[in-house]
Amino acid sequence: MIYCLGPKGSYSEIAAKLFSKILGENTIVCCNSIYDVFQQLENSKNNSYGVVPSENSIEGSVSLTQDLLLEFYDKIRIYGELDININHCLVGYNKEKIKKIYSHPQALAQCRNYIKKHEWVTVPVSSTAEAVKLVKSIGREEVGAIASKEAAKLYNLKVLEEGIQDYRNNTTRFILIGRKGLKLELKEDGIKKSTVIVKLIEDRPGALYEILKIFNDFNVNLTRIESRPSKEELGNYIFYIDYITPENEEDLIEALKGHVAYIKHLGSYRVFSRN
Amino acid sequence: MIYCLGPKGSYSEIAAKLFSKILGENTIVCCNSIYDVFQQLENSKNNSYGVVPSENSIEGSVSLTQDLLLEFYDKIRIYGELDININHCLVGYNKEKIKKIYSHPQALAQCRNYIKKHEWVTVPVSSTAEAVKLVKSIGREEVGAIASKEAAKLYNLKVLEEGIQDYRNNTTRFILIGRKGLKLELKEDGIKKSTVIVKLIEDRPGALYEILKIFNDFNVNLTRIESRPSKEELGNYIFYIDYITPENEEDLIEALKGHVAYIKHLGSYRVFSRN
Repeated sequence: MIYCLGPKGSYSEIAAKLFSKILGENTIVCCNSIYDVFQQLENSKNNSYGVVPSENSIEGSVSLTQDLLLEFYDKIRIYGELDININHCLVGYNKEKIKKIYSHPQALAQCRNYIKKHEWVTVPVSSTAEAVKLVKSIGREEVGAIASKEAAKLYNLKVLEEGIQDYRNNTTRFILIGRKGLKLELKEDGIKKSTVIVKLIEDRPGALYEILKIFNDFNVNLTRIESRPSKEELGNYIFYIDYITPENEEDLIEALKGHVAYIKHLGSYRVFSRN
Repeated sequence: MIYCLGPKGSYSEIAAKLFSKILGENTIVCCNSIYDVFQQLENSKNNSYGVVPSENSIEGSVSLTQDLLLEFYDKIRIYGELDININHCLVGYNKEKIKKIYSHPQALAQCRNYIKKHEWVTVPVSSTAEAVKLVKSIGREEVGAIASKEAAKLYNLKVLEEGIQDYRNNTTRFILIGRKGLKLELKEDGIKKSTVIVKLIEDRPGALYEILKIFNDFNVNLTRIESRPSKEELGNYIFYIDYITPENEEDLIEALKGHVAYIKHLGSYRVFSRN
């Protein structure tokens, strides 16, 4: 079973379908929210996985995923990562007649030059798939949606134009999550990454610098660093750090432990490619 | 004129009202999107400001604001920062009768324990204010919304319960933006912060570490660090760094310049408090 952020036709479902091929697991269940995905996994048997957006998301909030990884740390770990190319399509009946365009605010933002050129009025809705559903139910030529090709197909509407986003390199990163302790046996090899959450001992100049010095001493390449409010008090931060997993990762973690209030290892996992 | 992310009754409008008192500027215009706020400012006269969410936002995506700060760097700078306490309220007719609850996905997520306890079905919509509008137009006791007190007042609906979010320390950070070169003369003193965007020369172990070493050498306290995809190529990152502005900031920037592909100074600005 693979749980993903819905609705059907969303980019998360597209990512889940790709993970399903990799895992050889065919049942995909669309959930109402990122939280629901985590909760389903918490109550699931060991052979279930979840797929949620983690970076530059369209329908989901990235920060939500980051917060839930911390909240569910007792039970959930990361098992994989996959970048999906976001290919926004104009969906509807007749491009020349469109006056009003529906989509998720993030998708509208990513196509703003295109929308501006056509002088369309924008209407924000809760997801790109929801936008297509709306345009289908309105059933008039003057409305259109911005969504994936898959969403257009699902609601049997025409793709009037493809790749209408302003930046060509528009990707969303999805992570594969599951209950901790799963053994994911996959033939392919490839880059391995790790994610940790680190809380500094005190908020002072150089505190973060000392942590990065340790990564530097181990010759480890960081691929992401992000500070997030700790929710304990205002101005108190924790750091999410991704890095290419070194062979001596255990030694690295041990070295870090001496300089932080806590370190939570969210997983060492494969970076999958789309093919 | 102050442009803010709408709709009316959103947390962004609440932030804009607080900034309007500080600035002594009474006209607030609600825009359709974060992008619209930037665009209005780009075409505005010098005495206009904008208010957009920058961290842990409810209605807006934080990453969108970060991307637009880079995109509009030629014309737009940051002039202030303000943290707003998010006080989610249950809005509707009769708490006992509610079966279905409308709100923005982020707000639903922030009240998930509360919602779970009551076993309500959740329906994601595009903003918290939109949720209240919907509940008003449905006009039946079995629906409710999660939104601000101000949104309830705007649509003349009852606040059935206050402070229903799961974490007490739930704040959203808003920034005050305007065309570059504005002189903001304010009597009060207080903490000053700066924001820069830095692009490393190459992606290799220790590249970020070298940058942080310079901040450390200047004894400057970082308050946020965030990597974001550069949009130029996959796996290529830029860094957003906030820090307490030192007296010798010009020397700091000069020292950084020697170690980066570029550095963009988005502003040195006051951190305002709510009172």
